[in-house]
Amino acid sequence: MSKIDPGNYFEDFSVGQEIVHATPRTVTEGDVALYQGLFGSRFALQSASTVAASVGLERAPVDDLLVFHLVFGRTVPDVSLNAIANLGYAQGRFGAMVYPGDTLRATSTVTGLRETSNGKTGIVYVRTRGTNQREELVLAYDRWVLVPKRDVKAPAPDPLVPELASSVAAADLHVSWAPTEDYDPALTGSAHLWDDYDPGERIDHVDGITIEEAEHMTACRLFQNTARVHFNQHVEKDRRFGRRIIYGGYLISLARALSFNGLENAQTVAAINGGRHTNPTFAGDTIYAWSEVLERIRIPGNDRVGGLRLRTVAVKDRACAAFPWKDDEGKYDAAVVLDFDYTVLIPRRVTP
Amino acid sequence: MSKIDPGNYFEDFSVGQEIVHATPRTVTEGDVALYQGLFGSRFALQSASTVAASVGLERAPVDDLLVFHLVFGRTVPDVSLNAIANLGYAQGRFGAMVYPGDTLRATSTVTGLRETSNGKTGIVYVRTRGTNQREELVLAYDRWVLVPKRDVKAPAPDPLVPELASSVAAADLHVSWAPTEDYDPALTGSAHLWDDYDPGERIDHVDGITIEEAEHMTACRLFQNTARVHFNQHVEKDRRFGRRIIYGGYLISLARALSFNGLENAQTVAAINGGRHTNPTFAGDTIYAWSEVLERIRIPGNDRVGGLRLRTVAVKDRACAAFPWKDDEGKYDAAVVLDFDYTVLIPRRVTP
Amino acid sequence: MSKIDPGNYFEDFSVGQEIVHATPRTVTEGDVALYQGLFGSRFALQSASTVAASVGLERAPVDDLLVFHLVFGRTVPDVSLNAIANLGYAQGRFGAMVYPGDTLRATSTVTGLRETSNGKTGIVYVRTRGTNQREELVLAYDRWVLVPKRDVKAPAPDPLVPELASSVAAADLHVSWAPTEDYDPALTGSAHLWDDYDPGERIDHVDGITIEEAEHMTACRLFQNTARVHFNQHVEKDRRFGRRIIYGGYLISLARALSFNGLENAQTVAAINGGRHTNPTFAGDTIYAWSEVLERIRIPGNDRVGGLRLRTVAVKDRACAAFPWKDDEGKYDAAVVLDFDYTVLIPRRVTP
Repeated sequence: MSKIDPGNYFEDFSVGQEIVHATPRTVTEGDVALYQGLFGSRFALQSASTVAASVGLERAPVDDLLVFHLVFGRTVPDVSLNAIANLGYAQGRFGAMVYPGDTLRATSTVTGLRETSNGKTGIVYVRTRGTNQREELVLAYDRWVLVPKRDVKAPAPDPLVPELASSVAAADLHVSWAPTEDYDPALTGSAHLWDDYDPGERIDHVDGITIEEAEHMTACRLFQNTARVHFNQHVEKDRRFGRRIIYGGYLISLARALSFNGLENAQTVAAINGGRHTNPTFAGDTIYAWSEVLERIRIPGNDRVGGLRLRTVAVKDRACAAFPWKDDEGKYDAAVVLDFDYTVLIPRRVTP
Repeated sequence: MSKIDPGNYFEDFSVGQEIVHATPRTVTEGDVALYQGLFGSRFALQSASTVAASVGLERAPVDDLLVFHLVFGRTVPDVSLNAIANLGYAQGRFGAMVYPGDTLRATSTVTGLRETSNGKTGIVYVRTRGTNQREELVLAYDRWVLVPKRDVKAPAPDPLVPELASSVAAADLHVSWAPTEDYDPALTGSAHLWDDYDPGERIDHVDGITIEEAEHMTACRLFQNTARVHFNQHVEKDRRFGRRIIYGGYLISLARALSFNGLENAQTVAAINGGRHTNPTFAGDTIYAWSEVLERIRIPGNDRVGGLRLRTVAVKDRACAAFPWKDDEGKYDAAVVLDFDYTVLIPRRVTP
Repeated sequence: MSKIDPGNYFEDFSVGQEIVHATPRTVTEGDVALYQGLFGSRFALQSASTVAASVGLERAPVDDLLVFHLVFGRTVPDVSLNAIANLGYAQGRFGAMVYPGDTLRATSTVTGLRETSNGKTGIVYVRTRGTNQREELVLAYDRWVLVPKRDVKAPAPDPLVPELASSVAAADLHVSWAPTEDYDPALTGSAHLWDDYDPGERIDHVDGITIEEAEHMTACRLFQNTARVHFNQHVEKDRRFGRRIIYGGYLISLARALSFNGLENAQTVAAINGGRHTNPTFAGDTIYAWSEVLERIRIPGNDRVGGLRLRTVAVKDRACAAFPWKDDEGKYDAAVVLDFDYTVLIPRRVTP
């Protein structure tokens, strides 16, 4: 019998099934540095232990999105090795902060299944939980993917589509830090705090970064994300796009790093409300980003830190002064590669 | 007098000569992370300190092949700066495990010399020992290289070819770990253990990874391997291949990382029995790999961990379902770039 | 009001103005490893804690030029985001050594202003100080940049050009280490010490390294240097060069790494006397380097370590056996990309 795990097909999943993902991962300062080299983030909390101290943390935490990619990476061999498409995310909630030295592992539960109308594929819904070595939750999120059936004649399961909230509720946002009087806007890059952002406000993050093949593959290997479409030009050259496709999460991290221009104090990501990879991205594409403030969120019982629900849109080969998004019929502009709905935490102004 | 060391030519070597190689190297978690980003290994023992604890180690050890490349890198300026070809390896044996913070250094002894028939070059045999800061042996291996003579009229030395074993004996395999009851196949990625592999069994590792210029050069700089053919397109463009040649050891690490598919519990490399770089590799090549189990090795006095002697073959731009290797006349297929004979350690099934 | 900081224009600067730069940066072993992977330095002091111990240091320090790039990176958003050209450096002096775990921040003082004759631009002189978390100076240097005016009708300020020394005086060189009897030339790569270098001596460093896009962009992101010309092919393709321009500091680090061949014991950089980026560099260029010894410097009261004032010249796509530099009229050869005047520290021979 073959020793190669062929990955799961639609009929291999059952509602309620628990999957323990392999290959736990100890995060190190080395991972943090390579992530820095790939994405170039400038948020001060992750950049400097002195700034971390100014919000009451003992040291600089690991970037939330690096945590996301590492947890996500664990799930690929079991959930999406054969996936045709990664359809969406919801209800992503970050928990305990992660520090270098922590070891992450992941488990998933199948929460829904629905065969598609052509009978050849199905949608699998999973809820994934990432935990640290103390079994504390560091991240949980829902995700759904389109997976082929191994045997098109296999009977369809009873359809079950889980109810997924459109956003993480304010009361469910985990807040691990609060600015002290040492929190210094001169060092974080801006004096704009929670109070200064208004729903509906749009921010063009201005800068653009061109992606190289070596970069996105190095990121995926760092995350131990083995999805084949990112790595193998020999196979992809004869497929639909003729090229390696960049991991969608790479765009999330790049857009987040670009969003520093105008969101300098949005120090951590607390929730992923939803996300769509609207067009594929390839090496050579230059990525720009813009954001819209969707909501200003008061955290119950917390007057030091507030939430901003944001839509950050990543766009390829087009500057974002005109905020490219959808046309009048709701169809995404072909230049838009990511529409990401998430919630960041940002200090509130102290009112004496 | 020039301050530039021109490297050694054939007549600079003498049998019995001891060479202390320069530039000791402290290995850090940063090196480990960059190695991870370059090769994408998923073997759980190096990935997670929790898994390391489940085999009795205090923390995740450094990948054996990163140790190999670091030790090898030290030797390049003295042994192979002028080499025409790296002809082979033998009797490679890993010793004390290496952890971040350890400092590696290397010394070599010339064990053989043989001028080639054309009188212009010669083969130099060296045995290299890598040690840590406590003078413990971490790796010893034999290697032979083809080196030009500085002066073709220089007299040939008495030929001496050392006897080299075809493989490292079971009793010489250094075993530093043993699975405890916490060793969990769900976390290591497979339930296949030593007992499940049979000599003659072949495994197609399925995945392929395309190599970029930035990646192999970054690896060599990390290893401080200064062999010029890897770095200088300005010179190589006018030479035989017209391109930079990828360090052969890069293929060893890539093949080892790919071999996770089907060899998930083969946690460490204990020996390098032999290896041939059968064709050059260039940026843009996509590397696949397959393995054959050559031997199942019982370690004397150890019923917890066994050895598997493997042949892992790396192949460029061709999938490995048909296990490409040699033709009927023993000539390597042009797609084969590495034929690597080594011994891994893997837990044995506990028989109650 | 826009939340995007547009960067400073000429009329935004005033003599005596103090600028606190944002985004302090904790340096880690991860940063050191990625820097190693990018530049491939072999100076033994930074490579091995054992060698660091042999000069009386507790552990391997961070490469001085990585410190330079990190301090420089902080200043870009305030000083040179809109700069047309980086005109020069002077009076750069390294202070306290930096170790992994230290947090760097930077402040600058405007020391001079001079509008240029066309009335559209001006030269801004700043003195930048980088400090660690204990407020110790790790680096101070002067730099001047050509910056456009926002409004060409804005009145010119009173011109003030600071007096800048042509080199850092011997008494101002900060020396943190001294060789002990454990300092071993076999491990540092050469027996050539301070006493062996003569003013006027030229050294061809021989090797050449081709630069890839992924490499220089990764370096800048690691340094959090956000100058736009390095990252955005979508915009640069329609500009003067048609390509991304490599950060001038990248060439400094690459030249320093290449200079190991022939300057093996020049363990640290103590001063940057001056530097000019004489031609732009692009991905695909192969960089060679050569050095001239300008001066052999006795450090007052120190007979263990001496200074060598060096000119290191980086050259693209041409080997340096003929030491390409300037023509008879003092114009730089088109292949020269960097003319760097700096002072290194190197052990002196012990005279019994």
